[in-house]
Amino acid sequence: MKYVFGVDIGGTTVKLGLFNDMYELLEKWEIPTVVENGGKSIIPDVAAAILDKMKEKDFAKEDVLGVGVGAPGAVNEDGFLVGGAVNLHWEAFDLKGEFEKALGLPVKAGNDANVAGYGEMRMGGAKGFDDVVAVTLGTGVGGGIIFNGKIITGTNGAAGEIGHIHVEDAETEACNCGNKGCLEQYASATGIARLAKKRLAQDNKASVLRQKDNNSAKDVWDAVKAGDEVAIEIAEKFGYYLGKGLAAVANVANPSVFVIGGGVSKAGEVLLPYIEPSFLQYAFPPCRVARFALATLGNDAGIYGAAGLILEDTDVK
Amino acid sequence: MKYVFGVDIGGTTVKLGLFNDMYELLEKWEIPTVVENGGKSIIPDVAAAILDKMKEKDFAKEDVLGVGVGAPGAVNEDGFLVGGAVNLHWEAFDLKGEFEKALGLPVKAGNDANVAGYGEMRMGGAKGFDDVVAVTLGTGVGGGIIFNGKIITGTNGAAGEIGHIHVEDAETEACNCGNKGCLEQYASATGIARLAKKRLAQDNKASVLRQKDNNSAKDVWDAVKAGDEVAIEIAEKFGYYLGKGLAAVANVANPSVFVIGGGVSKAGEVLLPYIEPSFLQYAFPPCRVARFALATLGNDAGIYGAAGLILEDTDVK
Repeated sequence: MKYVFGVDIGGTTVKLGLFNDMYELLEKWEIPTVVENGGKSIIPDVAAAILDKMKEKDFAKEDVLGVGVGAPGAVNEDGFLVGGAVNLHWEAFDLKGEFEKALGLPVKAGNDANVAGYGEMRMGGAKGFDDVVAVTLGTGVGGGIIFNGKIITGTNGAAGEIGHIHVEDAETEACNCGNKGCLEQYASATGIARLAKKRLAQDNKASVLRQKDNNSAKDVWDAVKAGDEVAIEIAEKFGYYLGKGLAAVANVANPSVFVIGGGVSKAGEVLLPYIEPSFLQYAFPPCRVARFALATLGNDAGIYGAAGLILEDTDVK
Repeated sequence: MKYVFGVDIGGTTVKLGLFNDMYELLEKWEIPTVVENGGKSIIPDVAAAILDKMKEKDFAKEDVLGVGVGAPGAVNEDGFLVGGAVNLHWEAFDLKGEFEKALGLPVKAGNDANVAGYGEMRMGGAKGFDDVVAVTLGTGVGGGIIFNGKIITGTNGAAGEIGHIHVEDAETEACNCGNKGCLEQYASATGIARLAKKRLAQDNKASVLRQKDNNSAKDVWDAVKAGDEVAIEIAEKFGYYLGKGLAAVANVANPSVFVIGGGVSKAGEVLLPYIEPSFLQYAFPPCRVARFALATLGNDAGIYGAAGLILEDTDVK
């Protein structure tokens, strides 16, 4: 039996997973992410955590096929962190190369959202499919494009930045990126909260959402589940924009499945029917084949995907 | 020396090219496309043309590395013509497999626009780049997505159908596809003619375009080159929509180069500056790296790309 480590580096903690070569998660744990001093200790810390675990398990180097790493920044095909990682205080550098030096093991590296999406393709909500777009609905909206079982990184690791696809010409408020009408302004957790605030200000129609000044995305979906009409209108707006944006994505990438993850997706199956009508309206007919599924790995998607980068050339699938 | 054939099947003629394994075009010729009787004679006709040429040149089977084929329909990763080809009267079938049977040679097959874009990446306007989006501005707007030197076909061969990305919420006229506001309505040859007609109807501003009832895209670009102010306004509108649509493509695929081909691109370098401002406005910052180049292979792009499918695993590049 051989082993693989999957590493998911976040701004607060680094998640680590130990897998066997059957792609079974044997153990997972976390270490804090020390971003001080330009994040210089992150790689040594992660390397120590892995080497300690190998010692604990009595693994020789030959027992470990490699280490997969996901990081919160644009990572290109060669494992280079092209634009740095703001949350880790990292500048651009050879992420894969530095990890290989620190570990003395083969390393593959990717963008965290891409890697998590890859995990969902291999072992989660899109298992069994090769042509997948992973959509992360969190504070922002991110994405990962997978074709023929491989992550499409793009030329500088920025493929799948679908949160900033333009979906509304009439928008007057600016997105964080400076543009107006980005998908993220409607389909992220903050976007849904914004849609709720705007809808409630529109008239006085009764709604459970009127009990609070600021409703979260979760409040909205809870109200949708309770049949609240105003909440349902907000969900329709969310779904209209997300379907419209994903139609553009489908026309470019023609996936068989969109797998929807991130905090907003915790609302569950209830959100999918809101996306489909505008997706079907705006997608080019042959691209309408894409189905929608929920992510299932939750916070483990990153370590699964990272380990999967190492296990991609094996028979495991 | 080994040889390769490139085949580009169109609705009227089939273009054929004989290349050596240095990717040099040695000879090219055409045969008529016989679409009668469900297009059943197309494959035998093409096979006969290739086998005759081999006889003429005294090539044994071992001298030919393979035959690449581009066809006007959605072709998936396995060379299957997923939705048939309307212009050839073809239903869905195993395009690669049938050609292999008819020829007794290795065959690779792809969608004609994808294959032509691939040709531009290998030997044309995007030579030297691996991450390329080919944009065809003809009667419609098509595209081909190439990542890491390989065509992204999508799950059913419909990736890169960028002509039907939605770019205008206020459009009142319908596209051929039934939607309103598709990129094709503004950036194709017919789209540019439509923009011209609408602009001229708007007021009485003097313009050379007023000499005709119906101006072609070429008329518009000729007038732009002559400094006609109304034509320049039309070009700005064209460029605004094309830049906006390609920004969405860049956010998904993050190419290093957009290579612009098709009839409209014959206008030349003059059209590129009209695309860039709205592209830079709407593309997510890391995706703004993409540059714009003109296609250079013209009608030979298809045979170059088809031959390149066979030569992809050689040292030729």
